[in-house]
Amino acid sequence: MSNYHEVVLVQRPTDGKIGPHLFETNSKPIPSPGEGEMLIKQTHMSLDPAMLGWMSDDRESYIPPVELGEVMRSSGVGEVVESNHSDFKVGDKVMGMTGWREYLVSDGQGFNKLQPGVSEEMALCVFALPGLTATTGLYSFGEPKKGETLVVTGAAGSVGSIVGQLAKADGLRVIGVVGTDEKADWIVNDLGFDGAINYKKDDLAAKLAELTPDKVDVFFENTGGPIQQHIFNRMNAHGRIVVCGMIADYQSEKPSPGPNWIPLIKKRINVRGFAMPDHWDEIPQLLGKLTPYVQQGKIKYRAHTVEGLENAIKGLNMLFEGKNTGKMLLKL
Amino acid sequence: MSNYHEVVLVQRPTDGKIGPHLFETNSKPIPSPGEGEMLIKQTHMSLDPAMLGWMSDDRESYIPPVELGEVMRSSGVGEVVESNHSDFKVGDKVMGMTGWREYLVSDGQGFNKLQPGVSEEMALCVFALPGLTATTGLYSFGEPKKGETLVVTGAAGSVGSIVGQLAKADGLRVIGVVGTDEKADWIVNDLGFDGAINYKKDDLAAKLAELTPDKVDVFFENTGGPIQQHIFNRMNAHGRIVVCGMIADYQSEKPSPGPNWIPLIKKRINVRGFAMPDHWDEIPQLLGKLTPYVQQGKIKYRAHTVEGLENAIKGLNMLFEGKNTGKMLLKL
Repeated sequence: MSNYHEVVLVQRPTDGKIGPHLFETNSKPIPSPGEGEMLIKQTHMSLDPAMLGWMSDDRESYIPPVELGEVMRSSGVGEVVESNHSDFKVGDKVMGMTGWREYLVSDGQGFNKLQPGVSEEMALCVFALPGLTATTGLYSFGEPKKGETLVVTGAAGSVGSIVGQLAKADGLRVIGVVGTDEKADWIVNDLGFDGAINYKKDDLAAKLAELTPDKVDVFFENTGGPIQQHIFNRMNAHGRIVVCGMIADYQSEKPSPGPNWIPLIKKRINVRGFAMPDHWDEIPQLLGKLTPYVQQGKIKYRAHTVEGLENAIKGLNMLFEGKNTGKMLLKL
Repeated sequence: MSNYHEVVLVQRPTDGKIGPHLFETNSKPIPSPGEGEMLIKQTHMSLDPAMLGWMSDDRESYIPPVELGEVMRSSGVGEVVESNHSDFKVGDKVMGMTGWREYLVSDGQGFNKLQPGVSEEMALCVFALPGLTATTGLYSFGEPKKGETLVVTGAAGSVGSIVGQLAKADGLRVIGVVGTDEKADWIVNDLGFDGAINYKKDDLAAKLAELTPDKVDVFFENTGGPIQQHIFNRMNAHGRIVVCGMIADYQSEKPSPGPNWIPLIKKRINVRGFAMPDHWDEIPQLLGKLTPYVQQGKIKYRAHTVEGLENAIKGLNMLFEGKNTGKMLLKL
């Protein structure tokens, strides 16, 4: 029997930087599934900004960190190559928490078969963490109403692009904040956003004012950074701020301050931080919201794929550098 | 017929300072009530931090500002001294939006008679804005649960003292932040709080850690200031932050920054700004929560009274300087 590779976390990031020194790659014999188990060959692995948090020793976060010596955590899609499990047969494509490895044995817990017509990319770009996070944040906390204005940061990202498209489908005016003209072009011309702000180039306050004549009702925050205060300043009374990500600050030793809270009172604003793992039990409902829009072709996505487990770190860092164009995936 | 005094706003505060230059006192003949009206002689007027906001030209706030040339806004209690109104008779004590004046004519809209056994002080300290604000904030947004820990700033203030007592009555551990040892003594020994922090003297982080061994589930914010970040740092997962007041910042040209939002995600925290005027229609419900505790003697209060309309400005400034000991009232 031949060997496979797995990547294990051996050190925690101390300076917010992700590098090869944090990991060790092991070569191990491919295991055989026991009674009621199956062997999965991972084909597509998801790379997500949340991974930096999972590597860090932060016991207060929404899920426990990956322990040192453990295979690094990730979701992914694979093919069943051996099965002693009554619900899964050889050739099934399954999605679940796979980890940074080429093969794994599972008892099926937490794994679901891909629905017919759903590709590996679509599964990971739309129906996995990004789409569920977008759907939870927008509908459980954003309370979007037809005719309102939504501004989303990280708008070309895996979560932001879906938030914006869902809100467009619901009849909101949607403005996205991105970091390149290419991304601005994509969200406006391909995804149908009403406008884009390039936070690296535009005069933020002026551009935001121009694009949000009726100000902002829902602010979906994926990035942090200086744009945050500007969007905060444009909130309408009874506005909702959904805090989903702060990627601009994850790697900084001293996170930038947030807005003063006086406007929260004057405008009676709700600011809600959330994390998808609190909402696993709502997945059937969330899919009920998301799936029809996907079937109607209203949710477009693009994957940015790198190849081989040895490029996982590189792919992950592209996210923090804003160099990815689309949901970051690793093909195995 | 003799004359009465009214105080009119003639200029808006430009530097956050409230002084005599903003007002003009007029002497006018006491009016007579028309058909369906009554003449009220105000006896007790409420002085509230919110007044600074009402004087300012901030069209985005929760209620429109007082227009220049208008009588300054306030709530108060008065006695009906003449009546052509079928629901109110001479001698009735009534509470409502009276304004900075000794007499006013009203058609009864927005005025309620004091319940038997309720003094003018109790009406304004408990059943008016402070008590209703405390009750709304705590129950509509704070979601207090028995056994949890609540920290309230401005804990000896009109809102904070009631928030803390309600939470104590509901079985929470309650810690109050105050600015003098006298206030610390009052909230612990008279009101039954579990602990007090003097933000002017104590080592904030150390004292807070000592007093909140199980960290903080509900943070009721009335003041802002450096203590805010410390309490924010001690929030538990799924904590609720109710933002009711930021008195430390109302007078500053450049409000201090707030906390970075990363912990909102990690701990899935909800931050909610609110203002009582959004919730007038909930008053019957709110009184249903508040009144039984008052009847059971669980809500103590103290009024800090100054005398005469000419001392309204002085009384108001005592609030911003933290020099009041109790709900600020003006006796007429």
